[in-house]
Amino acid sequence: MDDLALAGYLERSKDRILATLCDWLRIPSISADPAHAGDVANSAEFCARLLREAGLHEVEIIRADAVGADGAGLAPAVYGEWLGAGDGAPTVLVYGHHDVQPVDPLDEWTSPPFEPLVVNGLLLARGSCDDKGQVLMQTEAVRGLLGEMGALPVNLKFLIEGEEEVGSPHFEDLLERERERLATDVIVVSDTTMVAPDIPSTTLSMRGLVCFDVALRTAKSDLHSGLWGGTVPNAALLAARIAASLHDGLGRVTVPGFYDRVRELSDEETRSLGSVPFDEAEFCSQAGVAYLEGEAGRTPYERTGTRPTAEVTGLHAGYGGPGMKTIVPATANIKVAIRLVPDQSPEEIAALFRTWLAAHIPEGVEVTVTPLGGVAPLLTPLDHPAVQTLCGAIERVWDKKPLFTRSGGSGPEEALGRVLGAPVTFLGVGLPGDNFHAPNERLELDQLWRGILAAGELLLDLGTLKVGQ
Amino acid sequence: MDDLALAGYLERSKDRILATLCDWLRIPSISADPAHAGDVANSAEFCARLLREAGLHEVEIIRADAVGADGAGLAPAVYGEWLGAGDGAPTVLVYGHHDVQPVDPLDEWTSPPFEPLVVNGLLLARGSCDDKGQVLMQTEAVRGLLGEMGALPVNLKFLIEGEEEVGSPHFEDLLERERERLATDVIVVSDTTMVAPDIPSTTLSMRGLVCFDVALRTAKSDLHSGLWGGTVPNAALLAARIAASLHDGLGRVTVPGFYDRVRELSDEETRSLGSVPFDEAEFCSQAGVAYLEGEAGRTPYERTGTRPTAEVTGLHAGYGGPGMKTIVPATANIKVAIRLVPDQSPEEIAALFRTWLAAHIPEGVEVTVTPLGGVAPLLTPLDHPAVQTLCGAIERVWDKKPLFTRSGGSGPEEALGRVLGAPVTFLGVGLPGDNFHAPNERLELDQLWRGILAAGELLLDLGTLKVGQ
Repeated sequence: MDDLALAGYLERSKDRILATLCDWLRIPSISADPAHAGDVANSAEFCARLLREAGLHEVEIIRADAVGADGAGLAPAVYGEWLGAGDGAPTVLVYGHHDVQPVDPLDEWTSPPFEPLVVNGLLLARGSCDDKGQVLMQTEAVRGLLGEMGALPVNLKFLIEGEEEVGSPHFEDLLERERERLATDVIVVSDTTMVAPDIPSTTLSMRGLVCFDVALRTAKSDLHSGLWGGTVPNAALLAARIAASLHDGLGRVTVPGFYDRVRELSDEETRSLGSVPFDEAEFCSQAGVAYLEGEAGRTPYERTGTRPTAEVTGLHAGYGGPGMKTIVPATANIKVAIRLVPDQSPEEIAALFRTWLAAHIPEGVEVTVTPLGGVAPLLTPLDHPAVQTLCGAIERVWDKKPLFTRSGGSGPEEALGRVLGAPVTFLGVGLPGDNFHAPNERLELDQLWRGILAAGELLLDLGTLKVGQ
Repeated sequence: MDDLALAGYLERSKDRILATLCDWLRIPSISADPAHAGDVANSAEFCARLLREAGLHEVEIIRADAVGADGAGLAPAVYGEWLGAGDGAPTVLVYGHHDVQPVDPLDEWTSPPFEPLVVNGLLLARGSCDDKGQVLMQTEAVRGLLGEMGALPVNLKFLIEGEEEVGSPHFEDLLERERERLATDVIVVSDTTMVAPDIPSTTLSMRGLVCFDVALRTAKSDLHSGLWGGTVPNAALLAARIAASLHDGLGRVTVPGFYDRVRELSDEETRSLGSVPFDEAEFCSQAGVAYLEGEAGRTPYERTGTRPTAEVTGLHAGYGGPGMKTIVPATANIKVAIRLVPDQSPEEIAALFRTWLAAHIPEGVEVTVTPLGGVAPLLTPLDHPAVQTLCGAIERVWDKKPLFTRSGGSGPEEALGRVLGAPVTFLGVGLPGDNFHAPNERLELDQLWRGILAAGELLLDLGTLKVGQ
C-alpha cells in the first residue's frame, strides 16, 4: 500500500486523527432530543473547524433561520468547499452527518457512550462509526492531499448534516435552497458498511423510511382493573392488537397495497447479490439473536436489503415501574418505522398506513398520528462510471474487488441525488458488528485508516471522470 | 338521623376529622415503590396515633422483622385493640390499609396527589378513599363511641395493613403468626364502594388476584431497524403478539382451563344482582370511555363483578422518548393482572398462565416471569346474621335498604376470613366515580360522615350478635 497517495501522511497522523475523533465523540449531539440542541450546535462548530483545518474554504454553518419552513428544531448542517480545480474539472460533493442516535438503554453499554475508549483496535462510542468517524475519514483524506500536493484534481464540496438521525426533515428544503452552491457531478456518501474487513463492498442502494408516532387514548384516565377491568377498553391491549396486526402469519406487512410498487430484482441483480457471502450463524451471532424470522420465501439478506419492512420501534402503555399497579391503562404510544424499496414512495405508503391504522381503531378512541420524517428509496446502477471509479479505489486499498450490496438503512441520499441531479456512490467502512443505533457502537480503526487511503485515491481518480456523465 | 349514637359527636368533630385526614394524606405511602418505604413507615406511625387517640390499647406496629419469610420489603401493619366488653361479648375485627397506589400519570392530576384539596364537598388526594379516609371513618366511630359512652358492647380489634396495594404478599404469614391475638367473631372491612350516594349497598364478594411481570429479551441489544429489521425478532412485536393473544374474538381469556372452575350464579344471586341499577351511559361517563367491550354474552356488571378477567396493566418496549429511534427493540416488559372468582385458585391459574405463556415464546427468547402477589376470591353468604346486622346499620343512616353487590376489586379479605375463621362483611362508602387507583382519586365527604355514623351503629348492633354464628 506504500504507493497509495496518503500512505505517508496517514502513518504520521494516526495519533492526532484518533485524538481529534475522540474529542468530537465527547459531544453528545443527539438530534432526537431537544435537550441536546446545544450539543448538536457544538458538534457543528467542531465539524466546521475540521473542514477549515482540511483546507476547505467558505466554511459555513447553515442554521435554523436559514432554511426550514416550519422553523422547528432544525439541527445545523456544515458546508465547506475547495474549488481550485477550475471549471473544466469535475465537482465532487461529500455527504455525511454529525448528529448521533439516542443512547438508551444506557445500562447495556459496557462503557459510557460519550467517553470514547479504544479496546483491541476498536473505538467504542456513540457516533464512532455512524457517522463522525466516517466524516473525519473524508476530511482527513482532503487534509492529507491538500497538505501533500497543495491541490486536488477535482472541485470539492462537503455537506455534513445535523439531523440525519431524525429523518432529515429539513434536508430537502436545504438542498432546494442551496441547489446552485451544491451543484456537483458526483456524490460520495460515507455512512454505510462493508461485508467484512476482508470482503470489501460498496452499496448500491438505501431503503426509504417513513416513521410514525401513534398516540392512543381509550379513557379519560387510567382505571382500577378490578372495578372496571374486563369491560372498559384497555389502551395497552388495543396498542398490542394494532402492533400484532402489522404482519400476517407469513411475516408480510398487512397494510393493503404495501407491496404494490415493490420492484422485483433483475436476474443480474439477483446474481450479484447472491455472490455476497451469508453465514446465518454468524449473522445471528452479530445480531445477538437466537433465530431469524420475517417475510416468508425471502432470505434474511433480501429481507434487510431489497424488501420493504415495518418495525415497531417503541410500544409503551400503562405502568412500567417496580411492582404492580392494578390499572386499565388509558393511553398508549406506538412508534413504527417503515423501510421502503424502489419504487415505493413515502407519501403513498404514509397514506396507506394511515388508512390501515384508522381501520384498526374503534370509534371513540382518540388517536393522534405524528409523521416523523420520510425519505424515498435510492438505487444507483452498478455500471455507472462513478461506481466503477469507486470500485477501483477500494480495490487498490483492500487488494480485492469489492462486492455490490444493498443497504437496508435509510438516509437523505435519495433527495441528494434527485435534487442535485448526480449519481450517489457509497464509500462506507462500517462493519455489520459495529452496532449502529445500538448500545456499544464502535469503529474498527483499521477500517478508518483504510477508508482514509481509499477516500484519497477516489478523489484523485475522480479527476478523470468525464463531466456530465 | 338525630337519634343515631354519633350524630352529636360528628357535628362537633367534622373540622378536626377533615384536618387529620388531610395530614395523613400528605404522607405519600406508596408501597409499590421502594423509594417510599420511609413514607409508608411514617404513615404507619400516623395510623398508630389515630388508634391510640380513638381509645384502643396495645397499639403496635408490626414490622418487617416480625413476619415475612422472605424478609423483603414488608410494609408495616398497625394493630390495636379494646377488649373491655369481656369474654361473653362478641369480638369484631376492623380491617383497612394505610398504603396507597402509585400516582402516575402525574400530568393527569388536576391537583397534586399528596396536597389534599376540598372542592364542592369532594376531598381530592391519593388515598382519600382508598383507603385512609375509610380507615379514619372506623377510628372516628370508635373514638366517638368510647368518648361518649366510655365503653362498647363488643371487643374490638383493628388491623390496618401497609402492603395491600402490592397484593399483600406477607399478609397471610402475618395472620397465621398472629392468629390468636387476631381471633374474632366477625370481620368488618372498609375498602369498597356503594352504588350511589342515594343507593346504599354492601358487597358480598371480592375477586381474587394474581399478577405477573413478564420480561422478554429477543437479542443482546437493540438493533438498527434498517440493517437488521425485518429478519431479527422484535421484542416489541413479540410482546404485542403475546398481549393480543390473551383474549379471543369473543373477549374470553384464552388461557386453557381458565374458566373451568368458575362457579355460575344461582338464580337467587342473579335476581339480587339484577336489581342493582345499571345505566350504561352513566357507567361510560364515570369511566371516561366511549364504549364497552369484554366477554361476549355477559353484562358489563357481570364482567366486572362475577366473571374472571385478565388485564394488561403495563406494556413497555423500545424507545419512548421524543422523536424516533430507528431500532429493533431487544427487550420488552408485560404486566398482567388476572382477577379471579369462586372457585378459581391463584395457584392453579398462575400455573395455567405460565403454561400458556411458555407456548407463546419462541425458543431462544429469554423470559423471566415474576409473580406479584396472589389472593383468592371471597364470597360471603347474603343470609349471614352479620351481613343482616350490617344492612340494618346502613339502612338506619341512609334511610334505605342496601342492595347486595359484587366487588370486582381484590384484597386480602379472603385470607382474613379463612385464617381467622370468621365472616367478612363490607361497610364501604366509596363511590364508582372516586377514581380508585387512578388520577384524581377523591372522597365524597358526605359519604365519610354517613360512614362514621354507620360504623358506630354497626358496632353497637354487633353487641347482640350471637357468638359463634
